[in-house]
Amino acid sequence: MRIDSVDFFYLAMPEILDIGDGSQDALLVRVTAGDHVGWGECEAAPLVSIASLVCPMSHSACKPVQASVLGHSIDSVADIRRIGNLVRAQSLDLLQADHTLSGIDIALWDLLGRRLDEPVWKLLGYSQSYPKTPYASVLFGDTPAATLAKARAIHAQGFRAAKFGWGPFGLTSVADDEAQLHAAREGLGEDGILLIDVGTVWNTDLDAARARLLALQDVRATWLEEPFVSGALTEYHALSDESGSVGMAGGEGCHNFHMAKQMIDYAGLKYVQIDAGRIGGITISKDVADYAVNHGVTYVNHTFTSNLALSASLQPFAGLKSHEICEFPTELKSLATAMTKNHITPDVNGQVRAPDSPGLGIEPDLAGIQPYLVDVEIRVGSRVLYRTPQLLP
Amino acid sequence: MRIDSVDFFYLAMPEILDIGDGSQDALLVRVTAGDHVGWGECEAAPLVSIASLVCPMSHSACKPVQASVLGHSIDSVADIRRIGNLVRAQSLDLLQADHTLSGIDIALWDLLGRRLDEPVWKLLGYSQSYPKTPYASVLFGDTPAATLAKARAIHAQGFRAAKFGWGPFGLTSVADDEAQLHAAREGLGEDGILLIDVGTVWNTDLDAARARLLALQDVRATWLEEPFVSGALTEYHALSDESGSVGMAGGEGCHNFHMAKQMIDYAGLKYVQIDAGRIGGITISKDVADYAVNHGVTYVNHTFTSNLALSASLQPFAGLKSHEICEFPTELKSLATAMTKNHITPDVNGQVRAPDSPGLGIEPDLAGIQPYLVDVEIRVGSRVLYRTPQLLP
Repeated sequence: MRIDSVDFFYLAMPEILDIGDGSQDALLVRVTAGDHVGWGECEAAPLVSIASLVCPMSHSACKPVQASVLGHSIDSVADIRRIGNLVRAQSLDLLQADHTLSGIDIALWDLLGRRLDEPVWKLLGYSQSYPKTPYASVLFGDTPAATLAKARAIHAQGFRAAKFGWGPFGLTSVADDEAQLHAAREGLGEDGILLIDVGTVWNTDLDAARARLLALQDVRATWLEEPFVSGALTEYHALSDESGSVGMAGGEGCHNFHMAKQMIDYAGLKYVQIDAGRIGGITISKDVADYAVNHGVTYVNHTFTSNLALSASLQPFAGLKSHEICEFPTELKSLATAMTKNHITPDVNGQVRAPDSPGLGIEPDLAGIQPYLVDVEIRVGSRVLYRTPQLLP
Repeated sequence: MRIDSVDFFYLAMPEILDIGDGSQDALLVRVTAGDHVGWGECEAAPLVSIASLVCPMSHSACKPVQASVLGHSIDSVADIRRIGNLVRAQSLDLLQADHTLSGIDIALWDLLGRRLDEPVWKLLGYSQSYPKTPYASVLFGDTPAATLAKARAIHAQGFRAAKFGWGPFGLTSVADDEAQLHAAREGLGEDGILLIDVGTVWNTDLDAARARLLALQDVRATWLEEPFVSGALTEYHALSDESGSVGMAGGEGCHNFHMAKQMIDYAGLKYVQIDAGRIGGITISKDVADYAVNHGVTYVNHTFTSNLALSASLQPFAGLKSHEICEFPTELKSLATAMTKNHITPDVNGQVRAPDSPGLGIEPDLAGIQPYLVDVEIRVGSRVLYRTPQLLP
């Protein structure tokens, strides 16, 4: 069975706000092979990933991503890996290619799962999809009072865990940040699992991070996420040596296996956070999960978009019983909710699982998506290389 | 002085061949501020970098690159670094951004150098631009006989050093590769500096690389470049432990400072090869050069495009007397030659230097470029986000 088409759909909210909310747009991927279809999603910058799908070749190691996908056979798990390897080789010098491949890889797993009538986690070799403890993933409020209110609301919704991130945190004084941390702890309650995400705000400034360690320990934060940019292994490791009970978490910026491996090998991570929509899809995410297991590091998904992306990000560690915490975005924009007919919701115990249905177990809602579809055209010379494909049949 | 415009020009040969020749297209960058202008170049995939310059914002950490450049002040070296840091922060989740920033950073250095009437290497803090020993950088022939002929021609042109890369090397048998290596050595002569570039052909296959070590030592190769993909630090280090007189070279795939630092810290590199058109421009390249000096690693430029890119890639290590070898492409397509009015050529001793003239010391040849200019249009919704700007006044 050959891959007949790879279609990218740029979806966006009518207005994109200048806030750290990744659910404001999406790049939906549809792959067809014969009568079969699979759906995926690439994280961030839809137009750029579209361009990398269709761009003219620069040279033998800088081809458009579709050159390594269209017409290739898709009959087995091995085919998905082969296609990914081909993209990485033939688009070696095309930086965006890893993000672009991610959505295609996810769609290929979905397609294969639907065709073989198996959930993706089973195709990955797991015998069971274990329940995960979702953390409500939200932005810090603009003030401690706003954060307190958010934390109380999360607690009232029954979440055991919550992650606060971005917003003003790390940008002003240590005292301001302490107030934010205590507000989050107070609202969440003494028993809650409190996670803090600072979104690389200190770049490589070890001292700025150090200055917040005591407060983070005071409020018993389980982890401090992305104190530094992804590759700052030395700074991560130095902070991990001093952080005591606060574990280092990071890895969402990794766009290939090696970057994640380096974070595990050299950064002193306790939690490696992988976005299946960036790192090269479910295939590479599972490689990282295997490596994390073998090196005593806990795997966590990174997801801030739709439930299609959430299901994709759950698959690689669905069968790892003790890797229990999972990111669960709770402030999604209407686009991200409208994208799918069904949703992953906490069960009576407040836990979530990768679906048991075939593929990713998530049905795109084409009619729901249609109002968010952005019309794009890319012309090079006299050739139209891309025009938004038809979504509805 | 504020940055008034950032214009990207997609240039291409009429036909792009499926070979490892990066000079078949180019992305020329023009930045203007008041009456001043600067020129730069981004490596590879012009359409994708154009898209990343102008794409709509996805969220606060995924903005188009131009959002962090247009309207910002450019009066000093510190301004260039500030702009680069802003791009990295505001386009954190836009993977292509590092490549896109590279050409802009180069153009900003050129603009500032022209305005201050100083060569860029002087603005970087060097007191002198030392002569470098250029190696002729060519592809392996399809057969050992073809490689022999290429090597003889290079020797006849007066080059002391040559690098052979890509082509069939590493793809067939060890015996085939041995024949290629001996042909290259024979043609270059006993005294020539022989460099081998395998372009990540073995991905992470340590044994495949090991199998060629003896032959590489036999022909006294100075370095083996990119046996593995850029991030494969463990494999690089393991090979370096066994490679004896053959030094490990790599780093062209690095698209930020941290990746290059990791190659120096963990990969057992003897030579770090940096493409100013990928890593974030001259600013980050100079950071890597400083780090290399402090860690006993030799800095080498990576360049396979125009003389504008060559000058940019020479600046970061122009003042490092003992970092003597430099990549000097000798099989450029007509586009890459036509792009500039003046060219960097070997002196009577066969050596090359970063120019003494202001900025990069290279004048774009607008009339020469015009025939290669590709007409591009990108439309999102009802807005045309990009249309090839006018090149000629």
